[in-house]
Amino acid sequence: MPTRFELANAIRALAMDAVQKANSGHPGMPMGMADIAEVLWNDFLAHNPANPQWPNRDRFVVSNGHGSMLLYALLHLTGYALPIEELQNFRQLHSKTPGHPEHGLTPGVETTTGPLGQGLANAVGMALAERVLAARYNRDGHVVVDHYTYVFAGDGCLMEGISHEACSLAGTLGLNKLVVFYDDNDISIDGEVANWFGDDTAARFEAYGWQVVRNVDGHNPGEIRTAIETARKSVDKPTLICCKTVIGFGAPNLEGKEKCHGAPLGEAEIELARERLGWPHPPFAIPAEIRQAWDARAKGAERERAWRARLSAYAAAHPEAAAELERCLAGALPADWSDTVERLIAESAKAEQPVATRKASKAVLDALAPKLPELVGGSADLTESNCTDFSGHKAIRSGAYDGNYVHYGVREFGMAAVMNGIALHGGLIPFGGTFLVFSDYARNALRMAALMKQRAIYVLTHDSIGLGEDGPTHQPVEHLASLRLIPGMHVWRPADPFETAVAWTSAIARKDGPSVLALSRQNLPPQAHGDAHRHGARRGGYVLWESGTPALVLIATGSEVQLAMLAAKRLAQAGYGVRVVSMPCAEVFAAQDAAYRESVLPSALRKRLAVEAGVSLYWRAFVGLEGDVVGVDRFGESAPAASVFAHLGLTADVVYERALKLLA
Amino acid sequence: MPTRFELANAIRALAMDAVQKANSGHPGMPMGMADIAEVLWNDFLAHNPANPQWPNRDRFVVSNGHGSMLLYALLHLTGYALPIEELQNFRQLHSKTPGHPEHGLTPGVETTTGPLGQGLANAVGMALAERVLAARYNRDGHVVVDHYTYVFAGDGCLMEGISHEACSLAGTLGLNKLVVFYDDNDISIDGEVANWFGDDTAARFEAYGWQVVRNVDGHNPGEIRTAIETARKSVDKPTLICCKTVIGFGAPNLEGKEKCHGAPLGEAEIELARERLGWPHPPFAIPAEIRQAWDARAKGAERERAWRARLSAYAAAHPEAAAELERCLAGALPADWSDTVERLIAESAKAEQPVATRKASKAVLDALAPKLPELVGGSADLTESNCTDFSGHKAIRSGAYDGNYVHYGVREFGMAAVMNGIALHGGLIPFGGTFLVFSDYARNALRMAALMKQRAIYVLTHDSIGLGEDGPTHQPVEHLASLRLIPGMHVWRPADPFETAVAWTSAIARKDGPSVLALSRQNLPPQAHGDAHRHGARRGGYVLWESGTPALVLIATGSEVQLAMLAAKRLAQAGYGVRVVSMPCAEVFAAQDAAYRESVLPSALRKRLAVEAGVSLYWRAFVGLEGDVVGVDRFGESAPAASVFAHLGLTADVVYERALKLLA
Repeated sequence: MPTRFELANAIRALAMDAVQKANSGHPGMPMGMADIAEVLWNDFLAHNPANPQWPNRDRFVVSNGHGSMLLYALLHLTGYALPIEELQNFRQLHSKTPGHPEHGLTPGVETTTGPLGQGLANAVGMALAERVLAARYNRDGHVVVDHYTYVFAGDGCLMEGISHEACSLAGTLGLNKLVVFYDDNDISIDGEVANWFGDDTAARFEAYGWQVVRNVDGHNPGEIRTAIETARKSVDKPTLICCKTVIGFGAPNLEGKEKCHGAPLGEAEIELARERLGWPHPPFAIPAEIRQAWDARAKGAERERAWRARLSAYAAAHPEAAAELERCLAGALPADWSDTVERLIAESAKAEQPVATRKASKAVLDALAPKLPELVGGSADLTESNCTDFSGHKAIRSGAYDGNYVHYGVREFGMAAVMNGIALHGGLIPFGGTFLVFSDYARNALRMAALMKQRAIYVLTHDSIGLGEDGPTHQPVEHLASLRLIPGMHVWRPADPFETAVAWTSAIARKDGPSVLALSRQNLPPQAHGDAHRHGARRGGYVLWESGTPALVLIATGSEVQLAMLAAKRLAQAGYGVRVVSMPCAEVFAAQDAAYRESVLPSALRKRLAVEAGVSLYWRAFVGLEGDVVGVDRFGESAPAASVFAHLGLTADVVYERALKLLA
Repeated sequence: MPTRFELANAIRALAMDAVQKANSGHPGMPMGMADIAEVLWNDFLAHNPANPQWPNRDRFVVSNGHGSMLLYALLHLTGYALPIEELQNFRQLHSKTPGHPEHGLTPGVETTTGPLGQGLANAVGMALAERVLAARYNRDGHVVVDHYTYVFAGDGCLMEGISHEACSLAGTLGLNKLVVFYDDNDISIDGEVANWFGDDTAARFEAYGWQVVRNVDGHNPGEIRTAIETARKSVDKPTLICCKTVIGFGAPNLEGKEKCHGAPLGEAEIELARERLGWPHPPFAIPAEIRQAWDARAKGAERERAWRARLSAYAAAHPEAAAELERCLAGALPADWSDTVERLIAESAKAEQPVATRKASKAVLDALAPKLPELVGGSADLTESNCTDFSGHKAIRSGAYDGNYVHYGVREFGMAAVMNGIALHGGLIPFGGTFLVFSDYARNALRMAALMKQRAIYVLTHDSIGLGEDGPTHQPVEHLASLRLIPGMHVWRPADPFETAVAWTSAIARKDGPSVLALSRQNLPPQAHGDAHRHGARRGGYVLWESGTPALVLIATGSEVQLAMLAAKRLAQAGYGVRVVSMPCAEVFAAQDAAYRESVLPSALRKRLAVEAGVSLYWRAFVGLEGDVVGVDRFGESAPAASVFAHLGLTADVVYERALKLLA
């Protein structure tokens, strides 16, 4: 029977050897946290290597994602479909062992980490999703949702602001099945953290309402075990386990130093480490008895089998709940989804009164929410402004998780990263609101959602200078364009209730990525929509109106569609052929076939004028060197919205004049 | 003699009346914090209304910037050039009283606030700048730098992650002259904060190493006074004063409720508040004796006079130090700056060996730092990777402020906002490093630097897929383009040591805004540079090379200039006339006169091919519908850099082929 130390050394050896072979990577963390990982995975973690999608598995998140080799070693050793060749191919093109763990690429990787602090926040979302689903679906005698979420986090994660946002929220929400291991090794890249990170982290987390287990020797399996047992007993608090560790444990000359954080140890030091650790085996060789001790396949299969038996009994007793749970876990929409969408869009097209698209958004939510129990909304403390408070929304509170709405507090980044965790967990579709300008705060989490292809929906209201009096700090100018630049992000900017319904339903139906809904604070007149528009709007851009054979095309989005329409009608009256293209989602339009795009924006039609209350450069890609853009290429102004639009030249008159210039 | 309560009520009345007149704004905070402001401003704040630029003034930052009317009321009442008409014009176009305080627009506004948490972080920068300048310039018997930095902050600020980053750093650095008033009113926009913000904030700040004064009644001047006295006695810790307040204090039906946070109280409620507060005066009328009690002009003039006398004595005793201090406070560069620049650029043009631009950047810093004591560098825990550790850099530590380098820790957003505070303070030019991809974390602080026109310099290394093995989480793709979209931001992406020198010296010489330096991890070959390049490069874009009469122009930046050059030379060999334009800073190029731009990119030359390892859409604005872009329109891959470049088609071969297609 191998010792625990030997088992942990398998991780250490794989990590130092893979990093050495790649000549790139981070051996320090895996060598430092190997003992903790060994105890957690061998004694506690409920998972099934044969089915990384088993819904009730414990989640394990490596928030200090540079320590990816620790995770790859664990997945390999316990029997996931990650053969040794992949570890030998660490950090090489097309391997399943990229530099930082990538969800969707490697079986068993719960979330993509590397940008520090976000894995921790994702884990808060996973732990929250577990509590919500448990409250919603478990029944007396039938516990089908019941798992822990474990996190490894380093000093870097805990210095990042997002750790404050996510952990303060987790404490307030009392997420007792969240267990975080703090790799307290005193070292970050610049050296000894005491010089820039003097926090009493244990006291900080107690201030958040967490249970804190202090002073655990991260190289002592007994202490680690006891700490995890303490954590699992918590009934109303998440737990932080503060583990004193030595970075690069086992490398005689480099352990405890920043040098071993992010560079290969070197052949000589690795040899010495092998000696010191008592690990005589060649690189990538794992002795059979160690391999056997790590193998978690039999236990994992039995765990899932037992759960599936519970699930069957549950389904027999509560068939409707079980069906809904299974549908939601599969990420599938209700059977009547298409009908719901068609009806909603048809209804929305009938709007006659001017309405802000943020309010149109609430109307859509009011219509959809009863059909979609999986929707979990929220706002970063702007609920009324974002109009995210749909009918029937119910706040999720500590100990009362049978809700569908998260008051995220003033925590935009935390919210977006928690939403990623909820989406990754499965079973729920998260949406969350803030002002468009504050997407800046959350930006990297939006990027991560796109990178991970997660269905997260951002309700970003007050989407232009039309926000008015709050002024330039609150008026987005570059944000629409810069969000559209994130690969895989869909940015919808609807012009009226019809397009708002199209935007929302497209975002919900999209299973492979996040969507932004950029919504107006101010009222907008509804446009007239024929049947063709229904298909066109879903394709991201469509001919909204035209008169004659177009000599000029106006392209507009959101609140500026009305300006384009006013100008176009004047141009038509003046005898010009003119087309108005509404482009609620340029990314979806760009993904259409060439024929459709050509039908909307004929390549021969080079007199093109784009109108959007944001930076003009983005639209140059559509209008070319011969076209023009009416945009906003400066910061805004504090004043009533109409004054700001007039002052910055976003008016139908200006559009008309600039169109005439192009036509001249 | 008016009572303190009456003095505070002047603030309350102005706030509720101005918000009512504007029919927009936030009365709750000014009414809640009026008593604290009254004690601080009347008893402690060292300032001179006649000279808001007096260098040794105490800094006062309203981090909860929606409470702008509190600040405008204080500035008006104490005698700044902010007449009552401006307050009557609150939130109107071209007023000096915008919705959120805007630095540069209103005398006495130290920083632009509104995006929550950032004012607090700016204040940390100001307090740090004070300590650094004091350590550097004060002499025995000559104290010329010696002021406090006071901050008002609300629940929103303290929920934001940046409050963790900035306050943890402030605690570690022992910034004892920083005093933060926490407006602990239990309310945020969504309602009672206890439901989403359960922190024990006092304990949290003690965990950061702060002195905390708990349980201060924010409506009791005596308690407030005592707390401030306690704060000012601190020798090695910043102080948090936890003030229990009632939001909207004095509005009988709305106080203590979220409703009074961000909307006018209404005429009826205002009338009742007048009665309750005992403030019978009409809107915007301030009785003479109250006005007189508030007037701080005489005291302020005397304070500045006394300081100027000290400064004269100092200048007599230490003329060199005094001259340097005055130069730095004025934001002026040394007299021989132009010579230094010319020499450095000429020297850099001689480079022959391939070198990463991050390393070229360090060489520039090594050359400039001895000439520019005002440079204060740093990194968000990536010092060696960012190559920000210039020769002669010295870490700033708690109690040892005689340095020029801040180890910011893993706190990108905090770093950028602290840098804004340092720049706003005056006397220092901050630069700070992280990976380009993590500019996402700091993005809104970069935007604020642009909005405030502050000279902050971001050293953003590992600027493309050329980062290699760390993979897509660490490889910027959309970042160059999205940073360029921020109005007023200059994004430099140099191709070699010559352009790196141009970029650095341009960023330092720029007094009205921030600059990004996007630098390569990998080695790049130096290009050949003639004299014309010196002027061209400073203009943001220039003809780097050409052969024959150009039929095609290649536009490239940074690491892709070498690809453009290789392809161009092959095209020339194949008999095509071709031009290569290097565009290290597209924003500076765009600001050149039309003739210069035409000379570089002739409008008739429509066969244009841009090359940059980032999203292609940005360059469509330069190449038009007829041109083409070799870019990266997807997330990257974890693999050695050369593999990633080849896999994603960023090679000279691809550039050559795409050029041929355009020429066909």
